[in-house]
Amino acid sequence: MTPTRRGLLIILSSPSGAGKSTLAKRLMAWDANLRFSVSATTRAPRPGETDGVEYYFRSKHDFEQMVAEGEMLEHAEVFGNFYGTPKAPVEAAMKAGQDTLFDVDWQGGQQIRRSSLGKDVISIFILPPSIAELESRLRGRAQDSDAVIAGRMAKSMHEISHWAEYDYVVVNHDADQAAEELKVILRAERARAERQPWLTEFVRGLNKEFEAR
Amino acid sequence: MTPTRRGLLIILSSPSGAGKSTLAKRLMAWDANLRFSVSATTRAPRPGETDGVEYYFRSKHDFEQMVAEGEMLEHAEVFGNFYGTPKAPVEAAMKAGQDTLFDVDWQGGQQIRRSSLGKDVISIFILPPSIAELESRLRGRAQDSDAVIAGRMAKSMHEISHWAEYDYVVVNHDADQAAEELKVILRAERARAERQPWLTEFVRGLNKEFEAR
Repeated sequence: MTPTRRGLLIILSSPSGAGKSTLAKRLMAWDANLRFSVSATTRAPRPGETDGVEYYFRSKHDFEQMVAEGEMLEHAEVFGNFYGTPKAPVEAAMKAGQDTLFDVDWQGGQQIRRSSLGKDVISIFILPPSIAELESRLRGRAQDSDAVIAGRMAKSMHEISHWAEYDYVVVNHDADQAAEELKVILRAERARAERQPWLTEFVRGLNKEFEAR
Repeated sequence: MTPTRRGLLIILSSPSGAGKSTLAKRLMAWDANLRFSVSATTRAPRPGETDGVEYYFRSKHDFEQMVAEGEMLEHAEVFGNFYGTPKAPVEAAMKAGQDTLFDVDWQGGQQIRRSSLGKDVISIFILPPSIAELESRLRGRAQDSDAVIAGRMAKSMHEISHWAEYDYVVVNHDADQAAEELKVILRAERARAERQPWLTEFVRGLNKEFEAR
């Protein structure tokens, strides 16, 4: 039986407004072997949201218990609600040779990188081409007040300050080009010797063929 | 001034007959920023060979002096002649941000990886799709006796046994596909955060733009 490679954990971070969601969607559409990590949250489901699709909706008690028992790869509190990544589905995917894409901020990325699954992590940071572009994408998204936009921009600048902690950096000048760059990174990572465990068997086959000549 | 990234050292190894030369040529044709490493040798130039093009032709005395003074990145003796990679042109290329492609065997690869330039090395091993294919390429190349072919095959099998020491492995089922895979690896390696030193300045620019809003 051909051995399956362990799936990769791909961390995608960026300031909001850098086009990360679009890029993640394109990467998912391109690659059937890639799954999007579903987070758990303690916030209430919004109309139309389904448990296990947008989020795993959990009570605060259950969430805290998962954290206490080491069942969260990473977690954080945002405006009084908890968000986190349950470990079990990620481990199942890895075992099945499926790669998982994580849309997390630098803190989430750091926690995943430092977790027990850290050696199968690759991390990619998306930078906006300019602040004008970042702001226009943030404004285009919703009718928010200037104060709200200013707050988001400040948060984005803080996120940007962590770019150098990532393995790869892609500047999103153009969505097509940036999506292509993400594919290239993923393809190259899959070509690493340790990510092709079937090669041991393949080379054994070459040796047998050589000896049988 | 935009800082230049340090050039990469790309080690390409394979058993002879796996199609490495064709792949190296395609990679060189694709990428103007890639130079092919020229080896030094003590063997006599053949008709049509020019010093500094096919090889740097050196006397045994000069070669040994270069080795003694640490001016060779790697070297080996083959049938009484010395072959090696002078360090100076590689360092000059690295400084100019140019990548260098090395066509060396596993021993040369190991020496370069362990050299003082080792942290900028990426290594790729090319595997043949089958032994039948390897042998047919070896036979197709020249009218050699069965004994000569058998010797080359044995040497190839030994080279193959070192595949797992490389960062990346590409099975050459099809030259187009394998060449594409090499390009992908090179593009991804160039997207690494530490290989884009200009990003420090770029992010400083984003910060300035943010503050000037």
